Amino acid sequence: MLTDAQKSDFVIIGGVAAGPKAAATLARRVPNASITLFQREEHLSYATCGFPFFASGEVNSFEELLKTSFGVVRDAEFFRNVKGFSAITSAEVTRIDRKKKTITAKLLETGETVEHGYGRLVIATGATPTRAPMPVPDSSRVRPFTRPADVIDFRQNAQRGEIENAVIVGGGFIGVELCEAVKDMWGIEATLFEKQSQLLPYMLDKEMAAIVQRSMVSEGVDVVTDADVVEIQLDAEGKPVVSVRGREPLSTDYVFLCLGVQPEVSLARDCGLDIGETGGIRVDQFLRTNDADIFAGGDCIESRHAITGKPCYLSMGSLANRHGRVIAENLAGETTEYPGVLGAFVLRAFETHIGGVGLCEQPARDAGFEVRSVWGSFSDRPDYNPEVKTLSLKMLYEEGTNRLLGLQAVGKGDICRRVDVFSSLLRQGALVDDLFDFEHGYAPPFAEALDPLHHMAGIAAAGQRNVTFVSPDIASVSIGNDDVLLDVRETDEANTELIPIPLSETSEKIVVIPLTELRDRVGELDRDRRVLVICRRGMRAYHAALILQAAGFERIEILAAGLLAQW
Amino acid sequence: MLTDAQKSDFVIIGGVAAGPKAAATLARRVPNASITLFQREEHLSYATCGFPFFASGEVNSFEELLKTSFGVVRDAEFFRNVKGFSAITSAEVTRIDRKKKTITAKLLETGETVEHGYGRLVIATGATPTRAPMPVPDSSRVRPFTRPADVIDFRQNAQRGEIENAVIVGGGFIGVELCEAVKDMWGIEATLFEKQSQLLPYMLDKEMAAIVQRSMVSEGVDVVTDADVVEIQLDAEGKPVVSVRGREPLSTDYVFLCLGVQPEVSLARDCGLDIGETGGIRVDQFLRTNDADIFAGGDCIESRHAITGKPCYLSMGSLANRHGRVIAENLAGETTEYPGVLGAFVLRAFETHIGGVGLCEQPARDAGFEVRSVWGSFSDRPDYNPEVKTLSLKMLYEEGTNRLLGLQAVGKGDICRRVDVFSSLLRQGALVDDLFDFEHGYAPPFAEALDPLHHMAGIAAAGQRNVTFVSPDIASVSIGNDDVLLDVRETDEANTELIPIPLSETSEKIVVIPLTELRDRVGELDRDRRVLVICRRGMRAYHAALILQAAGFERIEILAAGLLAQW
Repeated sequence: MLTDAQKSDFVIIGGVAAGPKAAATLARRVPNASITLFQREEHLSYATCGFPFFASGEVNSFEELLKTSFGVVRDAEFFRNVKGFSAITSAEVTRIDRKKKTITAKLLETGETVEHGYGRLVIATGATPTRAPMPVPDSSRVRPFTRPADVIDFRQNAQRGEIENAVIVGGGFIGVELCEAVKDMWGIEATLFEKQSQLLPYMLDKEMAAIVQRSMVSEGVDVVTDADVVEIQLDAEGKPVVSVRGREPLSTDYVFLCLGVQPEVSLARDCGLDIGETGGIRVDQFLRTNDADIFAGGDCIESRHAITGKPCYLSMGSLANRHGRVIAENLAGETTEYPGVLGAFVLRAFETHIGGVGLCEQPARDAGFEVRSVWGSFSDRPDYNPEVKTLSLKMLYEEGTNRLLGLQAVGKGDICRRVDVFSSLLRQGALVDDLFDFEHGYAPPFAEALDPLHHMAGIAAAGQRNVTFVSPDIASVSIGNDDVLLDVRETDEANTELIPIPLSETSEKIVVIPLTELRDRVGELDRDRRVLVICRRGMRAYHAALILQAAGFERIEILAAGLLAQW
Repeated sequence: MLTDAQKSDFVIIGGVAAGPKAAATLARRVPNASITLFQREEHLSYATCGFPFFASGEVNSFEELLKTSFGVVRDAEFFRNVKGFSAITSAEVTRIDRKKKTITAKLLETGETVEHGYGRLVIATGATPTRAPMPVPDSSRVRPFTRPADVIDFRQNAQRGEIENAVIVGGGFIGVELCEAVKDMWGIEATLFEKQSQLLPYMLDKEMAAIVQRSMVSEGVDVVTDADVVEIQLDAEGKPVVSVRGREPLSTDYVFLCLGVQPEVSLARDCGLDIGETGGIRVDQFLRTNDADIFAGGDCIESRHAITGKPCYLSMGSLANRHGRVIAENLAGETTEYPGVLGAFVLRAFETHIGGVGLCEQPARDAGFEVRSVWGSFSDRPDYNPEVKTLSLKMLYEEGTNRLLGLQAVGKGDICRRVDVFSSLLRQGALVDDLFDFEHGYAPPFAEALDPLHHMAGIAAAGQRNVTFVSPDIASVSIGNDDVLLDVRETDEANTELIPIPLSETSEKIVVIPLTELRDRVGELDRDRRVLVICRRGMRAYHAALILQAAGFERIEILAAGLLAQW
């Protein structure tokens, strides 16, 4: 029999995001409950998402990632004194006994094993790095970037100047952030290998990811897509050597394995809880497992996508925090539903901001939607504002119903607002026309009189009426021998900012007539030819297309989002 | 009889925002229509909202405010060549004859009068400065700030160094922006007189406006509220002297009359169109006047508020642009409704960002809502991010239904996202709980794991459960002799960042017990006293209140939004 000290009303496994949030909320809602949290690691509630910024040096000490806004470290004492629950660190839970309602934990500092009873249990075991599919040596210089030890080790090495170049395997969220961390701050030469044919797969569509890739290349990162890393070995001096199919082996000082994460579900699986098709713990809309006394949240659970209704897996600190609250409220006797996820994200790669929410093209098609896409490039504030920056957007919506499906955003401009607003619109099942009714905060320091989202609705409407937009996926644009590339930028722009390859390979087909002169000079063009109209952002090309239409041209296409999406 | 050249299918009166937007959209939707726009002034489609930034020098030349993103001036030639409509400038429309369906215009350069027939008419006559209610001399040094001549004149004077100090009469949107323009950029000493007891009346509630006022004072602006300007005269040398009731007359180099604007409706009224109770032209949901052939948009119309359903008047370039599109679509035979307005706004005063959307307290009560308010202060990104900044929010919602009514935001942090998202939520009639389901884009360079809007929902829920929040309107906080002010900040914070007047007048009542020690030291406090808990942002005070509650205290209040809303 366990003594009272060996039992708690609520036991929480996991001490990073969902766990402490659930425990703290519970302590507020059920003031007299006993709550014990077990955390495998030494640190509690550390800001995992801040790791790249500690690695880069932007955040000065690792302790910063453990502190509250008032400078106090979130350790067991803090949680006891302020939040009102017990946290036991360096304690690895090895078993859940659902019949006896106990957990078994190994205290890592002493090796001792303890049993602890629970009334109800919360599993917040997080995620673990995806196992490398290729042979990888056992070396401190070849490692993932998920645990405090990983980031502290890199930072120490970087500070000592022992890393001149690094290889990042995997071009997802963390891989892209790390390129900036190593390159921009420490001057480390970075090579990024991504297995797929684009960066940020599943987050962006290919042509939007291409904008990110070009910006990273311009910052000096060697980005290699379609890169099949077959093996990583150590040379005689213990230096990593990365072998990519079809390339010379690359010797490097450090290898980051950024292959994504998988839900950590072994405890849950071993005690017979349902695991979903995505590999995460299956929970209902209250975040309850198939055991009514066990809830689960954070990176270890499977979510439901708000648009498709299908299971999906997303690892996000923002979601984990919200899981914690929902679980605590349900445990406290309230009835709180967790809605489906939309997958909103933002990230930064050097000066390029990247974001999105909702579905990308392929997942949308897979879910049975007939997808329409529109693109645009915009200023994020008036062009007379010296701080003006641009951004390119892609919006997906459903043919016929015009229901919004997703937004992708890339550029140096303010993308967060647009992602957040679009997320709010997706949550309500909004249509393209609802974008017109969005009332944004407007003043020249912050915004244009019409928001890019208003323009996106206009582009969608224009595309449905009378104009054909060509995807900015430039490689897919075919220019026949009889076609004309009509550049409607002002002559000085056309002379100084050249049309990039592969369009420039067809430079003899380029005709420059500025939009401001087109109405008078339209006779210079052959009505029977197919005309692809090009400008900087896509807006002038649209006006040009209308002038051509009025003049009797029939085969007119516009390079969507303009050349801004090609640089 | 008018010749064909003296008639147009569509005539538009007004060439700044709604007018050109309507004309350009019409030209696209009805390609063969004849469209003629009459503009009283020399310039077309100038960026009125950019005036303060040209005045300040941030925007270098006035021409920038007339240019497209590709550097071409939006003049009559541009509109003809690119947008496909005729614009006649320096042409003041003096009369509308609804029976004959003609307008009469005076060509200001020649003095000639012309008549022009219309099929359908758009009135976009904008707004004019509100007439000063006090005697004001006829002087180029005492003027409003609404026309190009106003702003160009000030800029020339400032550049010549002829203005050492200036008085701004009126603390609304433009008055506040102008303080920054004159002070920050030209070093001109600024005095702002506002008649009401707060800045930005009708836009912010008093305690939120107080944050703005303190920040402007800290930038060196002399802000005087409750200032009744009774007269402005010129002294013997022609220098303006401003007389405020109860103060010494103030001699100054320049006076800006920022008394707001009124819809310019004389043409509409004279031809018998309905004028609404707010003074704007009355239009239906299609922006059509009581004459089916006449539409109106921009700053000259009366709007309907989306939340109250009542008439209201708002002068905003962003709304004017949207009016233009709606009018054009309806004229083109589509059926496009213009929804009620939410009044979203953002502005900048030095480094302080200000924004809001929806209703303030008094208008909400006047509309019959039982209003609840909550406040909070937050970081706009993780505290370990060196670029972190704070913001304070006030949220209004309806008692009982929990329907969201309004948001106000002040701070150096990123407020635009929150105003925009809240605007989108208000449009859908969202409830407090819907804020929890808002999925924002999260990454440390841009955001916290939980958005301030999530916290606001949490504060509303906490306030409904068990804690009393005291308005940050510090003057209204009464501290009796038996009360305790409990400062739960860390000791070093309490020592360095003092509690401001008038609370500090009660300094003998202040007890400092850091939150991290409160659970152990709660015995030092007298249970029977009323305790007002204070911290930096309000969050620690909330946790402290829960600890006090658990210890049996019964009269506990929290200073909402913390001291951050007091500096």
